Amino acid sequence: MQPDLLPGHRAVLSLQQLRNISPLVHCMTNDVVQSFTANVLLAIGAAPAMVIEAQEAAQFSPVAHALLVNIGTLTADRRDAMLAAIHAANESATPWVLDPVAVGGLTFRTQFAHQALALKPAAIRGNASEILALAGEHSGGRGVDSTDDAFSALPAAQALARLTGAIVAVTGERDYITDGENSWSVSGGGILMTRVVGTGCALSAVVAACCSLPGSRLDNVAAACQFMKFAGQQAISASCGPGSFIPAFLDALYGLNGEALA
Amino acid sequence: MQPDLLPGHRAVLSLQQLRNISPLVHCMTNDVVQSFTANVLLAIGAAPAMVIEAQEAAQFSPVAHALLVNIGTLTADRRDAMLAAIHAANESATPWVLDPVAVGGLTFRTQFAHQALALKPAAIRGNASEILALAGEHSGGRGVDSTDDAFSALPAAQALARLTGAIVAVTGERDYITDGENSWSVSGGGILMTRVVGTGCALSAVVAACCSLPGSRLDNVAAACQFMKFAGQQAISASCGPGSFIPAFLDALYGLNGEALA
Amino acid sequence: MQPDLLPGHRAVLSLQQLRNISPLVHCMTNDVVQSFTANVLLAIGAAPAMVIEAQEAAQFSPVAHALLVNIGTLTADRRDAMLAAIHAANESATPWVLDPVAVGGLTFRTQFAHQALALKPAAIRGNASEILALAGEHSGGRGVDSTDDAFSALPAAQALARLTGAIVAVTGERDYITDGENSWSVSGGGILMTRVVGTGCALSAVVAACCSLPGSRLDNVAAACQFMKFAGQQAISASCGPGSFIPAFLDALYGLNGEALA
Repeated sequence: MQPDLLPGHRAVLSLQQLRNISPLVHCMTNDVVQSFTANVLLAIGAAPAMVIEAQEAAQFSPVAHALLVNIGTLTADRRDAMLAAIHAANESATPWVLDPVAVGGLTFRTQFAHQALALKPAAIRGNASEILALAGEHSGGRGVDSTDDAFSALPAAQALARLTGAIVAVTGERDYITDGENSWSVSGGGILMTRVVGTGCALSAVVAACCSLPGSRLDNVAAACQFMKFAGQQAISASCGPGSFIPAFLDALYGLNGEALA
Repeated sequence: MQPDLLPGHRAVLSLQQLRNISPLVHCMTNDVVQSFTANVLLAIGAAPAMVIEAQEAAQFSPVAHALLVNIGTLTADRRDAMLAAIHAANESATPWVLDPVAVGGLTFRTQFAHQALALKPAAIRGNASEILALAGEHSGGRGVDSTDDAFSALPAAQALARLTGAIVAVTGERDYITDGENSWSVSGGGILMTRVVGTGCALSAVVAACCSLPGSRLDNVAAACQFMKFAGQQAISASCGPGSFIPAFLDALYGLNGEALA
Repeated sequence: MQPDLLPGHRAVLSLQQLRNISPLVHCMTNDVVQSFTANVLLAIGAAPAMVIEAQEAAQFSPVAHALLVNIGTLTADRRDAMLAAIHAANESATPWVLDPVAVGGLTFRTQFAHQALALKPAAIRGNASEILALAGEHSGGRGVDSTDDAFSALPAAQALARLTGAIVAVTGERDYITDGENSWSVSGGGILMTRVVGTGCALSAVVAACCSLPGSRLDNVAAACQFMKFAGQQAISASCGPGSFIPAFLDALYGLNGEALA
């Protein structure tokens, strides 16, 4: 059974809080999406900071509102710095989010992802193939693309949420967000978003920002998904292809308001 | 004597195959152009994946359709990972492409480029200064810019193709693509493309995608050059400067179709 | 007392020289802004080259017109390469510019920044919090954002300029540029520029380009600030948010001309 759609007023509440607090998000993300991720956070009203040297990362995550760990271009150095940042985040109760890019197919990152899972992420955001792989189920992911449908991965997402205590967001044509007991779905966006690099990775950064907000973490993470789907849909209407989508998408995030969302 | 222009119907055939197969391109490229390269591949219908840790790179290149090696921001770690990926690619018959950015002037990358040359690239894509330097001829390159005319480097490109077995593309105002015996030229684009970072680097990624297609590799590499020149020319018409060129170029790649190309 | 605004004809002179010489700028900058920095330099008429491996960096900075050192994503490897490049730059009289991103709050980069200060930068460009921290005064910076007003940091900037011999630019809603004795202010731009990542970092790259020009270095650095404020203001008028600002800004830099600036 499909979970209910996130009610608009809950997304509105998260947006108001996001704009009021402007969370500082410590981003440890992959080399490809650094600039786009920072611009997405800035456009929506949060503040990005990319700090990656191990001792600095451990010094910084406790003063940030949230930490993002994305394994897209993981290296041995980056892994060590991420672990230092995660441990420091946990000691200071800074929520951290795992984006397990392409987990399952590649040994090095898969080992790291499982190690990280034990360190209590506040949320996990991935496509169906990634969530299935993380939950120990077979996945046919090809590189960073999912070959599985998001709804088919909802049971795995729920199991993963119960196992780890994290909110799990499995995203695709429709997104599903679960704490293991309750779940929301979010619709919007469109296929053009898969022809632009970093829309999923940037969503994970917005998820991190929203994990720092007061109130229901399940609702806040679902709201993050809703912001991106909503702005994505607006941007698709305003663009002629993936090139013009990018500026239109940032403009739409910047212009997001409660009235339209509700 | 100027080589003939690539016939339109050959570029059309390559485009159809590219869109049908959607090759997964393992990109080991420089820090500056990661996002643009990924967006170019996505726009044209291929799939990028940036995997850079040595053991992952060696695990991934055999399952990709093609591998790109670009030395623009080479480091010692990256060199080792590239060599691991190239060896694994060669063992599994994954074609790989060398983009020898700024080779000649800087010792570290020049040594690596010559080492890589011996490892049988399927194609090499560079500007005139880079191809001249790689062929052992004097070059007056300044940083990443070419100070030489592409046509003047065609004999060096032909010699390099015969020596290595690679298709060599020397690009500039007009592009020349050769297997050492036969050559094509490709025209289009415009000077504005040199005011945007990464157009050459992204072309090398499209060359890699096209090296994985069935049929004549010479034709397929020339087609990659044609796609970029054609979309570049369309984007120049639609833009007011290098800023608006970027989204227009990605839109044009996304909208490329056989009718217009032919 | 507010310093005088930089006279338009001085900015025009710097722009003419920049376009004539097209300085080659060796950029050692952070991972987030590489592409935007390169595109800003290309749009305004300079030439970027990102060279980061230690031995290459030391080989390249002497042949570049200027070197940029930005510590936004400093790592131990990058620090060593930067020091090698700075020493080589100093031996060959290549001017180099320090962008001390988020200095003060994080130990590793703060130690490096103070070490670099002793190596005679030609110019330093930072926001108020960064300049205050570098001058040894308390700062309340939050990540990369300044929580201080630029004018309030002018005395610290002047002291820093006298101490180091560098031109110091402290940037914000209005920019102040000083050699310790004489100072200029520069106005323009707008708040939207703080919602796009890398505008400050890219300015530092343009400052580096301008440090290589003949004539008054104070005027040339102030002119760099003026170019960005002026183009920023034009782009804000032409855009609907931070997304459309980016292409409009690059177009405006590309189209900068003396008539409008004067």
